[in-house]
Amino acid sequence: MFNNTQVQTLNPPQRLLMGPGPINADPRVLRAMSAQLIGQYDPVMTGFMNETMARYREIFKTKNEWTMLIDGTSRAGIEAVLCSILRPGDKVLVPIMGRFGHLLAEIAERVGAKVHTIEVPWGEVFTPEQIEKAIVDVKPHVLAMVQGDTSTTMNQPLEHIGDICQKHDVLFYCDATASIVGNELPADEWKLDALSVGLQKCLGGPSGSAPLTLSDKCAEWIQKRKKVEAGIRTADHTDGTEPFVRSNYFDLGMIINYWGEERLNHHTEATSMLYCASECARIVIEEGVDNCVARHKLHGDAMLTGIQALGLNVFGDLTHKMNNVLGVYIPEGINADLVRGQMLTDFGIEIGTSFGPLHGKIWRIGTMGYNARKDAVLQTLASLDACLHANGYKGPKGEAAIAALAHYK
Amino acid sequence: MFNNTQVQTLNPPQRLLMGPGPINADPRVLRAMSAQLIGQYDPVMTGFMNETMARYREIFKTKNEWTMLIDGTSRAGIEAVLCSILRPGDKVLVPIMGRFGHLLAEIAERVGAKVHTIEVPWGEVFTPEQIEKAIVDVKPHVLAMVQGDTSTTMNQPLEHIGDICQKHDVLFYCDATASIVGNELPADEWKLDALSVGLQKCLGGPSGSAPLTLSDKCAEWIQKRKKVEAGIRTADHTDGTEPFVRSNYFDLGMIINYWGEERLNHHTEATSMLYCASECARIVIEEGVDNCVARHKLHGDAMLTGIQALGLNVFGDLTHKMNNVLGVYIPEGINADLVRGQMLTDFGIEIGTSFGPLHGKIWRIGTMGYNARKDAVLQTLASLDACLHANGYKGPKGEAAIAALAHYK
Repeated sequence: MFNNTQVQTLNPPQRLLMGPGPINADPRVLRAMSAQLIGQYDPVMTGFMNETMARYREIFKTKNEWTMLIDGTSRAGIEAVLCSILRPGDKVLVPIMGRFGHLLAEIAERVGAKVHTIEVPWGEVFTPEQIEKAIVDVKPHVLAMVQGDTSTTMNQPLEHIGDICQKHDVLFYCDATASIVGNELPADEWKLDALSVGLQKCLGGPSGSAPLTLSDKCAEWIQKRKKVEAGIRTADHTDGTEPFVRSNYFDLGMIINYWGEERLNHHTEATSMLYCASECARIVIEEGVDNCVARHKLHGDAMLTGIQALGLNVFGDLTHKMNNVLGVYIPEGINADLVRGQMLTDFGIEIGTSFGPLHGKIWRIGTMGYNARKDAVLQTLASLDACLHANGYKGPKGEAAIAALAHYK
Repeated sequence: MFNNTQVQTLNPPQRLLMGPGPINADPRVLRAMSAQLIGQYDPVMTGFMNETMARYREIFKTKNEWTMLIDGTSRAGIEAVLCSILRPGDKVLVPIMGRFGHLLAEIAERVGAKVHTIEVPWGEVFTPEQIEKAIVDVKPHVLAMVQGDTSTTMNQPLEHIGDICQKHDVLFYCDATASIVGNELPADEWKLDALSVGLQKCLGGPSGSAPLTLSDKCAEWIQKRKKVEAGIRTADHTDGTEPFVRSNYFDLGMIINYWGEERLNHHTEATSMLYCASECARIVIEEGVDNCVARHKLHGDAMLTGIQALGLNVFGDLTHKMNNVLGVYIPEGINADLVRGQMLTDFGIEIGTSFGPLHGKIWRIGTMGYNARKDAVLQTLASLDACLHANGYKGPKGEAAIAALAHYK
């Protein structure tokens, strides 16, 4: 299976990653990971941990004390939240508008919750009224939903959902892996109880660390399920009154104790990924979170303009499109795999395929994180224009990059 | 809590980490993480994944096809194995000789198994007869045990355990996070069914990726619990006959499908940590696995010789001490925290405290991974010698490093 002569050293080719993520990491983030390690209870290290918490409070626009990292990919953050807030048998409502809604439902089912779903067709979003009606019908303990679902490129409006959840005493959890800092999401203003993300989209890092934040109300609930490990338990520790979390690694109560003043040993912190996550946040804060969202809108719109000038149709309800990704209908008569393959191997540019009902019908093109840049947009448009025409495309020729340039002016 | 003027950038101080881990990462490993990302289904990336699998087969001395990484710290690897092989209600036998045995029992309890434990006092190991007697009594589905437990510095002999497990039809799982490549562990020869490790000890990397390997028998068992995600399921997918795994992130059946030829989407691979894990293995393979174990023995013995020349008593049964860590009784009349603090802040060297029954009684000193080196051993001994005497120690003076030098000759 593996040809030893073919790949012998870590020497990845130059690729411009313009799919739905992961994208190229900011070189500053990659350099941050080359910093040497220090001990996990070194005062400098705990200082770095506190600094990282403070930085993600700025990213999430929250005052939540419990703002920290899960050592795993973005779905580790999702599972940590869901298995910590949902007891077996608890009801959860999951509105599904794409693949990642299915994922939330799947994870909730795995952790033993009673899962209720509502769905809209791929390419649409929910109205607040649809959500509230389902909450009234189901009476869930938790509402779990995705903000930006890259599988459909839709950005679910969330500004009124927190009020609805508070009115009906429902915990409001959102997975914003694909949308954070590319689209607006002020956690406190929109009254989120739990929010988890990943680094590999608009935050400009590699996958492997999942920042999250918990409201005080949510953290208090989780602490009721507290269980301290036998190997480190002392006479001062008491367990919570609610059933313990069915995972050690994802027990947010223990992870709170690890990031908090007690510094109670849990996992060995993934220090290089902490350096990385911290640097991702620092770079966005330096730019300004709102400026970062605006940059994603600027370059996302430029890409959209160019794609339309190329004569291609764009998927879904454009009034709710995420800033950082778009879906393009593959033109009739074009061999989709051939074009994508040539884009990758000849032009060095990766664009994305699709899942589920959209498989084989649309490509997904991202403008996110470090790659939400003018040169990345223009190179992609000029290359796709050439590559399509080299493969028999009959639409407008040589217009895509020029239209984007005009958009920038 | 966080003083913004104190820690503003990632600029860790120089520390020589000579505790029980994490230790300083090999600079080559840190450099590997600065390589730019490529797409997760890029043929070059899947080539890197296959290469990483091949490299860990060499590390583990196994032919197991399913040899791969879990994207999380070493305890993520433990939980992935235990929740995938143990159905709720299944019996597991956990022999406990230190903190990490308690951890295995804790994780098994969390995932719903019926946990049976046997214990020896900290500082001792089990005989094969003790293990077999308990297996006969309990009739477990799985035997889960730690090879090297840094909390006690003991290395559990495992060469006869696999035969016992096969005789009684028990799956044999071992956590070798702290011992791998510092102590002998040929997975196939010793008949392990599952083995998981971490990078942050003798493999010379940061925490954050958990390599593991599964025997064919174990992988077949796990595949019986198969469940494909709703968002990516097709008509060709069928679920297994056994109850599904109560975790999405840690479902090894799905992780096998992700690393296997089907490349079925699961998490977004933590590419920088994969680069890192792959480079850790490459460096050990370049040295030779057996040579790497011998190096840990050489420098571990040199450290032991120096510590004894300093007049300090060493903890536990030395015939079963791990090569890469030792426990030192804190001399009477010495303020342990003061000495450890001065070692860190004045000498720049970290040594470890202890957990549970050994808390406040012993320090733990490691010689592992990149820090299993002559200069690291000699600097540590000379510094500890000076630091102890600066704090009122009355034992031999100025002999520790000289004794270690003599050991090297």
